[in-house]
Amino acid sequence: MADKLSTQPYKGTRDFYPEDMRFRRWMFGHLRQAVESYGYQEYDGPLLEPFDLYASKTSEEIVSQQLYWLVDRGERKMAIRPEMTPTLARMVAGKLQDLPKPIRWYSLPNLWRYERPQRGRLREHWQLNVDVLGGDRLQGDAEILAVAGSIFEAFGGSELVRIKINNRKFLDHVFRQTCGLADEATLAVTRLLDEYFKLGAEAFSAKLGGLGLSPDQIAEVVSYTELGRRGIAGLSESKYASEGGRELVELLAHLDSKTFEFDPCIVRGFQYYTGTVFEAYDVSPENTRALFGGGRYDNLIGLFGKQQLSGVGFGLGDVSLQNFLETHKLVPTLGSGVDVLVTNPGPEKRAKAQQVLRQLRASGFRAATTLDYSGFGKQIQSAVKLGARFVVLLGDEELGRGEVGVKNLASGGQASVREETLVEFLRSDR
Amino acid sequence: MADKLSTQPYKGTRDFYPEDMRFRRWMFGHLRQAVESYGYQEYDGPLLEPFDLYASKTSEEIVSQQLYWLVDRGERKMAIRPEMTPTLARMVAGKLQDLPKPIRWYSLPNLWRYERPQRGRLREHWQLNVDVLGGDRLQGDAEILAVAGSIFEAFGGSELVRIKINNRKFLDHVFRQTCGLADEATLAVTRLLDEYFKLGAEAFSAKLGGLGLSPDQIAEVVSYTELGRRGIAGLSESKYASEGGRELVELLAHLDSKTFEFDPCIVRGFQYYTGTVFEAYDVSPENTRALFGGGRYDNLIGLFGKQQLSGVGFGLGDVSLQNFLETHKLVPTLGSGVDVLVTNPGPEKRAKAQQVLRQLRASGFRAATTLDYSGFGKQIQSAVKLGARFVVLLGDEELGRGEVGVKNLASGGQASVREETLVEFLRSDR
Repeated sequence: MADKLSTQPYKGTRDFYPEDMRFRRWMFGHLRQAVESYGYQEYDGPLLEPFDLYASKTSEEIVSQQLYWLVDRGERKMAIRPEMTPTLARMVAGKLQDLPKPIRWYSLPNLWRYERPQRGRLREHWQLNVDVLGGDRLQGDAEILAVAGSIFEAFGGSELVRIKINNRKFLDHVFRQTCGLADEATLAVTRLLDEYFKLGAEAFSAKLGGLGLSPDQIAEVVSYTELGRRGIAGLSESKYASEGGRELVELLAHLDSKTFEFDPCIVRGFQYYTGTVFEAYDVSPENTRALFGGGRYDNLIGLFGKQQLSGVGFGLGDVSLQNFLETHKLVPTLGSGVDVLVTNPGPEKRAKAQQVLRQLRASGFRAATTLDYSGFGKQIQSAVKLGARFVVLLGDEELGRGEVGVKNLASGGQASVREETLVEFLRSDR
Repeated sequence: MADKLSTQPYKGTRDFYPEDMRFRRWMFGHLRQAVESYGYQEYDGPLLEPFDLYASKTSEEIVSQQLYWLVDRGERKMAIRPEMTPTLARMVAGKLQDLPKPIRWYSLPNLWRYERPQRGRLREHWQLNVDVLGGDRLQGDAEILAVAGSIFEAFGGSELVRIKINNRKFLDHVFRQTCGLADEATLAVTRLLDEYFKLGAEAFSAKLGGLGLSPDQIAEVVSYTELGRRGIAGLSESKYASEGGRELVELLAHLDSKTFEFDPCIVRGFQYYTGTVFEAYDVSPENTRALFGGGRYDNLIGLFGKQQLSGVGFGLGDVSLQNFLETHKLVPTLGSGVDVLVTNPGPEKRAKAQQVLRQLRASGFRAATTLDYSGFGKQIQSAVKLGARFVVLLGDEELGRGEVGVKNLASGGQASVREETLVEFLRSDR
């Protein structure tokens, strides 16, 4: 071994040292609690799925440019999952008859995409996926959006987020009927609209000119993009009236206007969406990327069999959420991994130290000791470094009286405590 | 889309439906609690690592036959991690100066190996990895073995497991000095010994004959394998006396003989072990495979730089552990994902239902409703299917009196409760 190996993680991925992991566990804990309060249950699937599972319905950009894939030793072409919804659909389809409806499921998988690493985008990230399948569509859409809102409430950030809503059926009606576009032009305009926020109104209009539309058609599309939040009130009587439009109006009537609003330019990239679509944005103008998004899909379960079951869901990435929480200072100070350090008093008292440690552990304390017989001063220093709250000192004198010394590193207090009352003392001195 | 996609997961992997996930969460929760009680902190690393990270030290069988790998779009040869220790070593080496010693870390990663799926072996599995680096070697070995023992205690299975211990330095001494083998023969015999339990004593001796050893050497090796638990007492005065032998005797003196014992045939496959090695076995004779194993590695951190730090750790797979817990009936009945179902009484009372749901969720209940306006009888059926404990009925009559109906599905009891005391009532009626 002449060359030393690099200590860096693979580009676009992260090492989670204990302090990073504490943050992740805190964040995931809040996510789990918020979602479970609605009765959603956690599921998981394998990391590798057949390449074909993504080839049909995931966005073309992901499949052709961003998928990690390999051919296994049995000649199967497998992909590392870039998103969770296809796995969800496969699993639901596999037990469609047996699962009580509506199916309320969530997952927290790690996902992979070959991306140029940049702020908010990594090659490996974790994503909260929440979906409800079955039941009334309107009620399902309203519930999934309420869950999304509750997540930000759980972090104390509900006023810092706006969730923007649109409808694929509505969009389709607008482009085909109102604007009079053919199939191909409808697809091209829809794709361009998905980049509206990135491009801005001006660049959008300019690019629209390159799609071979008539001046009237261009004017209609631009006029549609200017249909703001106020436009939704009279929608049912306007030239945009349609089934998708009705769905939009009904859904918005179910939602709190402080958080939710109609936006004509929301599309979502995935090709499988067929009804309601939505994206959440930070109200702070510095953060212009969507925090997360989702929508309704009617035809995913049918990829696996004859039966259909409509669903709606969203995916919230850990990197975007962490950026959001840090930007708005919503992360509290997180505790350490050790409550008590018991000093290691030397080989002849090793059994005593182990007995105290066992007692503390059985009582729910996270209790450690040093792994050498250094001086007590050095051992206390190591307790400070670990962030322990207490040091239990096994000095000869105290032990002779059936006592142990206790140092509270947070308060600075020090006391001698009878051995049998140690647990009680530590509990009351928190 | 003429062909329908398969609903089966990739061979050798598992779908975790909510009931499977509940089991996994229960099992992982116990693992986390047991390990954290010793002050171990959780870490994680990326799923893909450079192929070279495994090429040098992981067992040859894994690298040449079982590694999942791919070449990324930047021509880097990456592997899906087959084990966690190389990632641990990389991360520790990356912050060696900054980390307080001893480093007590654990992780619960998913790992991949291309195996022929069979009982106890899958292509994707999860593995608890627990390691301590730094500190006195003897104390570190004793602590990591105590942690391993505590895990089985946490599941109520400590009397069902025996942990068998050996030492690589000792093995090396025995084969080189006592048996007089050259380098190549030492390696070959060590590898063969690793299969001792699978082969049995007779087949082992037969295969030993094929390695080109002299009759005297064969007799010495066989005599060594017969050095049972009793042999350890006089080890320091026997022909096996050596530094590794001394380590073994000292370590066993620190451990409870109810759970821990010396076994001359324990080797462990990984090439990076340099001292203590151990494997845990189910006491039930039906289960002859090791439940888990581990050992001490002195030279892993040095792959990344000039400095060394000795560590000791073990890896416990979820499939083996699940088999063990199920075989010994150590799995309790696990609860459902829903506490309360609030009936969905129709569009005009939707706001009331949502208000009750919000109140329950804010009070820590996992509260769901149906997503359609079916009859109350059908809604109660769906509560039963979900495993909910309570149904809250929003009937016209009760609501008129400011009350709601409550049905306790566990006891069969039914009551009318004033709306403002609902939370209190549900808490007391558990």
